[in-house]
Amino acid sequence: MSYKEAVEKSDVVILAIPFQAYDEVIRPLADVLKGKIVVDVSNAEKSDGICQAEYLENLLESSRIVKAFNTISAWSFENDVYGASRNAYVCGNDAESRQRVMQLAQAMGFTPLERGWLRAAETLEKKPLQLFPEWRTAFWITLIMYTCETLYTILRAIARGRDASYIAKRQAIKSPMVMSGWMTLWLLSATFLPGCIAGVIQLSRGTKYRAFPKWLDRWMKARKQLGLFALMFAGIHACLCLLMLAGGYFKGFSVKQKIKGTEQYLYRTYYWNVELSFTFATLSVALLTILGITSLPSVNQTMSWREWDFVQSKLGYIAMLLGFMHVTLFSYDVFDLNYMKTWTYGFPHPAFFMLIFPMVVFCLKFFLILPGVNGKLTRIRKGWERGKPNSPFDRI
Amino acid sequence: MSYKEAVEKSDVVILAIPFQAYDEVIRPLADVLKGKIVVDVSNAEKSDGICQAEYLENLLESSRIVKAFNTISAWSFENDVYGASRNAYVCGNDAESRQRVMQLAQAMGFTPLERGWLRAAETLEKKPLQLFPEWRTAFWITLIMYTCETLYTILRAIARGRDASYIAKRQAIKSPMVMSGWMTLWLLSATFLPGCIAGVIQLSRGTKYRAFPKWLDRWMKARKQLGLFALMFAGIHACLCLLMLAGGYFKGFSVKQKIKGTEQYLYRTYYWNVELSFTFATLSVALLTILGITSLPSVNQTMSWREWDFVQSKLGYIAMLLGFMHVTLFSYDVFDLNYMKTWTYGFPHPAFFMLIFPMVVFCLKFFLILPGVNGKLTRIRKGWERGKPNSPFDRI
Amino acid sequence: MSYKEAVEKSDVVILAIPFQAYDEVIRPLADVLKGKIVVDVSNAEKSDGICQAEYLENLLESSRIVKAFNTISAWSFENDVYGASRNAYVCGNDAESRQRVMQLAQAMGFTPLERGWLRAAETLEKKPLQLFPEWRTAFWITLIMYTCETLYTILRAIARGRDASYIAKRQAIKSPMVMSGWMTLWLLSATFLPGCIAGVIQLSRGTKYRAFPKWLDRWMKARKQLGLFALMFAGIHACLCLLMLAGGYFKGFSVKQKIKGTEQYLYRTYYWNVELSFTFATLSVALLTILGITSLPSVNQTMSWREWDFVQSKLGYIAMLLGFMHVTLFSYDVFDLNYMKTWTYGFPHPAFFMLIFPMVVFCLKFFLILPGVNGKLTRIRKGWERGKPNSPFDRI
Repeated sequence: MSYKEAVEKSDVVILAIPFQAYDEVIRPLADVLKGKIVVDVSNAEKSDGICQAEYLENLLESSRIVKAFNTISAWSFENDVYGASRNAYVCGNDAESRQRVMQLAQAMGFTPLERGWLRAAETLEKKPLQLFPEWRTAFWITLIMYTCETLYTILRAIARGRDASYIAKRQAIKSPMVMSGWMTLWLLSATFLPGCIAGVIQLSRGTKYRAFPKWLDRWMKARKQLGLFALMFAGIHACLCLLMLAGGYFKGFSVKQKIKGTEQYLYRTYYWNVELSFTFATLSVALLTILGITSLPSVNQTMSWREWDFVQSKLGYIAMLLGFMHVTLFSYDVFDLNYMKTWTYGFPHPAFFMLIFPMVVFCLKFFLILPGVNGKLTRIRKGWERGKPNSPFDRI
Repeated sequence: MSYKEAVEKSDVVILAIPFQAYDEVIRPLADVLKGKIVVDVSNAEKSDGICQAEYLENLLESSRIVKAFNTISAWSFENDVYGASRNAYVCGNDAESRQRVMQLAQAMGFTPLERGWLRAAETLEKKPLQLFPEWRTAFWITLIMYTCETLYTILRAIARGRDASYIAKRQAIKSPMVMSGWMTLWLLSATFLPGCIAGVIQLSRGTKYRAFPKWLDRWMKARKQLGLFALMFAGIHACLCLLMLAGGYFKGFSVKQKIKGTEQYLYRTYYWNVELSFTFATLSVALLTILGITSLPSVNQTMSWREWDFVQSKLGYIAMLLGFMHVTLFSYDVFDLNYMKTWTYGFPHPAFFMLIFPMVVFCLKFFLILPGVNGKLTRIRKGWERGKPNSPFDRI
Repeated sequence: MSYKEAVEKSDVVILAIPFQAYDEVIRPLADVLKGKIVVDVSNAEKSDGICQAEYLENLLESSRIVKAFNTISAWSFENDVYGASRNAYVCGNDAESRQRVMQLAQAMGFTPLERGWLRAAETLEKKPLQLFPEWRTAFWITLIMYTCETLYTILRAIARGRDASYIAKRQAIKSPMVMSGWMTLWLLSATFLPGCIAGVIQLSRGTKYRAFPKWLDRWMKARKQLGLFALMFAGIHACLCLLMLAGGYFKGFSVKQKIKGTEQYLYRTYYWNVELSFTFATLSVALLTILGITSLPSVNQTMSWREWDFVQSKLGYIAMLLGFMHVTLFSYDVFDLNYMKTWTYGFPHPAFFMLIFPMVVFCLKFFLILPGVNGKLTRIRKGWERGKPNSPFDRI
């Protein structure tokens, strides 16, 4: 069957040919396609290309162009199994044609989602080129943090006179273990800091009706991802710690001799502060896991925003506090004055850095929940503005 | 622009002012708002207040009041990122206005959900005040259990002559470890017990057409949450156990001397019962995790109720049985007759209590799956009733 | 009230009686039911029975039969709590009646999903009889693998002269630990192998327009499930390893004597290769967990197929490579020539088998990503066919 014959028989034509062949294949069919619905399913090949559906509309001025299905993988078409998204985004300038294609999508087992005029097509075409755009900010923050921490660790080792082989060997398990814990605390701090900064800005401006600086806005939108990275590092840290503890590494043991019947054996326990430190760490990971679960789209859809706020903010702060206490209890001896003299090289113990960033966040948060400050902030967030005394919000 | 000018230009007016200001701001606008759709987005500030949307309807008798958007956080309006629910509940007495507002919600990227007449508004207004109402029963059951277990542990320690400092130190890791295991078994029992009780009640009544007592109904609705609490405690228990084992705590080791070449070293293994106990515990946690995953809304939406029943009931009982065996194998020596004499203080070993509650559930369940009993119960659940011999269900 | 009276008052009649009673109860009501919508909610009791809704349509030729609600559990009807699916599938030969029942379902709080003509009813009726049909292939592959591995382990133990009691004792923890690791690597290989085979077939055929052999198709549809089984075994393996390490099992320690002040104590660490091996294992489990999370329906709905491909394929291969390196680093000494002489029994060390299957997959994948091969395969997957030089796809 020729293209022409195929097109003549249908009133909805789905164009499944590469964009490069549009001119050659479609131009001769313009007459036959007159008045028909033509569905463009092509994807962009580069992110700075033209809008292919609009190009097609110029080619076929008397057809009704609809962009659809391009975000669905070929595999999903043939198989009713799980896989990538089954959302069929539909856009086009003719409302009736859009409806027709949406019904088609429904009948094919996809979830049709209307996206308005054809000018939305460019976004749809370039969607398959995207790779987790909403994770980008969090990814870079995480990468920069990790690089800084690694550099610091290596520089400190050099300053303390370690040789290259020692440093290399530490990368096998000790260094990843320390770093993943460090990352957890810093990422959690980075998750909660922008909310505090936003509060301070709103307080100082006396209004919520001015946009935040762009960097803060991007940071705030990356909070969920930062929190999930923190959870990942917490999990890795927990595993590596358990592996090292099981291997018999570490200080912090108290050894007792016990006699039971005729047998005599050594009975080893952690010191009390280490015990408590581990329990806090376990609870912190448990809370972070709950936070992670409530970040799943299907779970947070069932939550009201008060519940969401309770979990993400209240439980989140408790998780961070528990992690903070974990490090404090485990490493309190590095804050011993005699030991701190070894810092004179200029390279304090990592625990010092681990704790300083969360401490800043706690101080800011503590300031924001002081009764007077908190009340004022609440009023601002409900719409009150400084210097506008006659507004209806004055009565809040 | 004054309020009046703004209102005149629109046929859908969204009222985003605090409820306290309704009288003052809206009353003068009643004439201009005549016939227009007025969307009330206010939230209740206390759970015993009046219905604000109905109050507004009395104020504006000739406008068409629609309640919508109040359950969506301000953050979701400005940002297309994940967060709390994007469901826009809409209710109002005029069907056409509801439709109009639902289209608006759709266009704004929310999921519109119709909720009928305006009298539903009160529920919507008070929704943001709720904090996990479906978790309440499970939370209290869990809290009471935990309190009882803590009290028992402390009383037992006192009865055995331990001093305060010993008891305090045990709270660091040993006590949370024991308690979290104990909680897991009891919470699992509490998850499965109501189903058994319901079966017994249906059997004794000979019909399924009478409502269960209210307490049982509430308990049955809390089963999912109880199971998830059990999973959380199981995870905490597993972490704390691993940490303690890694520290070298615990009995249950068999130490052998091995000679390999010229080296001679000690080779330590668990006793066989301890090994098996740990494997069972691991499998139990694995099954509980599967149960937890199938509780996620998006996962259980894909399951038929036979599959749901298989996972939640069959796998659930196996998980509980494995946990039961874990404790039995690990602590079988506390059931030794000589050791049990130490119970004469009146405070049996916690393992005794850990096992007794699951045992009750197993016995009940065993009774219910006896061929004769199970067959009768199945008939009852399909609609058969005792003493109604001529119903069509008689043939089942 | 008699059946007849009840029916006369309604225009939509929901038949909630067992299928066995249809003849007796419904035949006399045929006249009263004329023109009315009759909703059949019955479930099939065996998988080879007739279609009950079509049977009903023959009984009531002048009523409009709609099949609906049968996939929803009785529990979901009475309770607004989570549980099994709330999807209400609706089918029937009269479009208007279908619409009516779908509105009813919506009003009852379910998600109505249209399923077309009444001949779809048979599938719906038999749905509740299904038990995870999409998991069947993966389940059997897993079971066969596990059986083979167990048999091999036992035969090898016998060949090495171990007695029955030794073998039985090993089943408590050592054997499950080894097997779960083995299963993880083999299941991951089985997840990625079909994709490679598909690539080779497409290359050799020079087209993507011919269906794959049926076995390959089934295998490819089981990949997600195989991957999730791999994740489950990885989790079990990690737990069991940690438990054994904590118990002091295992080789791979380097013991040093340290003197601190007046105390002298033994300081134990893993050898460097063991450290690295454990870190790789941890990262592998972390990646597999991410893969598992992106398999959740609600998460993968938010992903484009490029993102899906990135996570499932790229991250998946990295996870498998890390697992592969973990075994290699931990067990490299079993590939020592002297040790390999002990293989002359004909039973190589399990590590040999663990590594050989992933190796095959890596080789195939390496071949497929060679620049020339990969380019050709990409062209084929975009629609290019060997021996059809004049198609529009020639220009890709």
